[in-house]
Amino acid sequence: MVLLDQRRLPAEEIELECRSSAEVAEAIRTLAIRGAPAIGVAAAYGYALAVARGEDPEEAAAVLAGSRPTAVNLTWALGEVRAAADPAERAREIHRDEVDRCRRMAAHAADLLDAGTRALTHCNTGGLATGGYGTALGALRAASERGLLSHVWVDETRPLLQGARLTAWELGALGIPYAVIVDSAAGGLMAAGEVDCVLVGADRIAANGDAANKVGTYPLAVLARHHGLPFYVVAPTSTVDLDTPSGEAIVIEQRAGGEVTTVFPARNPAFDVTPAGLITAIVTEQGVHRAPYEQSLPRPEQVEA
Amino acid sequence: MVLLDQRRLPAEEIELECRSSAEVAEAIRTLAIRGAPAIGVAAAYGYALAVARGEDPEEAAAVLAGSRPTAVNLTWALGEVRAAADPAERAREIHRDEVDRCRRMAAHAADLLDAGTRALTHCNTGGLATGGYGTALGALRAASERGLLSHVWVDETRPLLQGARLTAWELGALGIPYAVIVDSAAGGLMAAGEVDCVLVGADRIAANGDAANKVGTYPLAVLARHHGLPFYVVAPTSTVDLDTPSGEAIVIEQRAGGEVTTVFPARNPAFDVTPAGLITAIVTEQGVHRAPYEQSLPRPEQVEA
Repeated sequence: MVLLDQRRLPAEEIELECRSSAEVAEAIRTLAIRGAPAIGVAAAYGYALAVARGEDPEEAAAVLAGSRPTAVNLTWALGEVRAAADPAERAREIHRDEVDRCRRMAAHAADLLDAGTRALTHCNTGGLATGGYGTALGALRAASERGLLSHVWVDETRPLLQGARLTAWELGALGIPYAVIVDSAAGGLMAAGEVDCVLVGADRIAANGDAANKVGTYPLAVLARHHGLPFYVVAPTSTVDLDTPSGEAIVIEQRAGGEVTTVFPARNPAFDVTPAGLITAIVTEQGVHRAPYEQSLPRPEQVEA
Repeated sequence: MVLLDQRRLPAEEIELECRSSAEVAEAIRTLAIRGAPAIGVAAAYGYALAVARGEDPEEAAAVLAGSRPTAVNLTWALGEVRAAADPAERAREIHRDEVDRCRRMAAHAADLLDAGTRALTHCNTGGLATGGYGTALGALRAASERGLLSHVWVDETRPLLQGARLTAWELGALGIPYAVIVDSAAGGLMAAGEVDCVLVGADRIAANGDAANKVGTYPLAVLARHHGLPFYVVAPTSTVDLDTPSGEAIVIEQRAGGEVTTVFPARNPAFDVTPAGLITAIVTEQGVHRAPYEQSLPRPEQVEA
């Protein structure tokens, strides 16, 4: 299978060919492909590739599942392809469904925005992160198509700069006005009245609505609350993990300190958890869910409705 | 005059020679020397150099004053040397006084800390920023000497990484345990109970206690408040500007977007303003000042007491 190597963007658009499930797992681990829905899709294709090549399916599933710990989409997609009679067909279906879910949640989320919205977003939640269209960035795209979006503030998203590299690249291609800011400038912009709302994606949403997402999401939620701004999480139902009761049970990936600096001791959490109490609404393809999330999040029987 | 070029640290320790007031102004503008007290000291020496070389003193003062807009120390120090009979002697005195003030405020601030403190700091407020010893970092140094300090979380401080480059370098030299984090990881560490307090410096403190400091300071204050943690501003009286009634009147330097990225549209505020209501205490060399700051900040007649 062939994927666009996100580590090289925007400087170079280079395709990476993965010839085994181990190579797919390595592409996920090293962030050549990233974004919760996209790594679910990639893992599903990786498993189908393993079956087609005659690899041990159990071992392939274990290697793919272990490539990154936080996003539940990975576990979910692997469960789907392992249970399918035709893993390749199911992988394609998952991919198609994720893009379809994105378009639906984007429409739901755009309904929440007013004309002239100046939105702030973090990390990359666009087509690159989802296999097409995007979650939070899909919502901004839909809002832009409706003429509601005036400007996007793009957190650069340290340490790997997914905002400055990937979101800026996607917004530029879409012709949506934006400016990149250092992550720590978001608070000052809110205080200056230059931000109307925050939209982010999620890597896992617990049953109570606590949402794990790229490190830096949680402080944005605190800042949004402090400034009375809505804070929306836009994610597919494949990101909702009803088996995880709350954020405390979510494993936060700790990545190598070298991503921050190669010279000094460093701590490098890849994600943080935003408590449900700081989230204005969670938007999935099924609609807008508000607190109490235990009741409002889609139930398992609805997920694949 | 010769100064250590902070742009090259920690990779290289290179001395920069400034042969005119214009070269000193350029060193300040390009951040070869930075930190509110240090640029005040540098500007004072720069003015003395201009007088010694027979430059037009008014023009030299104007060029130096215009090198950076936010720190009031620059204006204050230039006022002092311009009024002095012997500018060179007064510049040396200002330098010596700033270091003395640092030691005194560090002792006051260390009194506020408990044993085992895990402190979080932003930007660089050490010897490099002050001409010796440091403000917030001086306080951590004093706390470490008293055996009170267990760990320092160092915000890397985008875009120019003064934390990762300069504070880490100073803490390493002092043997104080630390880890560098991306700025947006501070909130998650607070939520995990791994931070006991925040100490920062200031570039200008208004009469009501609002404090302008390196961009990213204000969100830390909001996060500290959200987590019930004390947030201390440690700064000399030369940073207190009683002629500025509140933060709204402070000019925030907007630097070139290229510091964030050379590829994309970017907004690059160099500072933000933390409202007095989010500051637990302001520590100067005269002691610990608490709200209402209109009453507690040192009066003009006390500044040079």
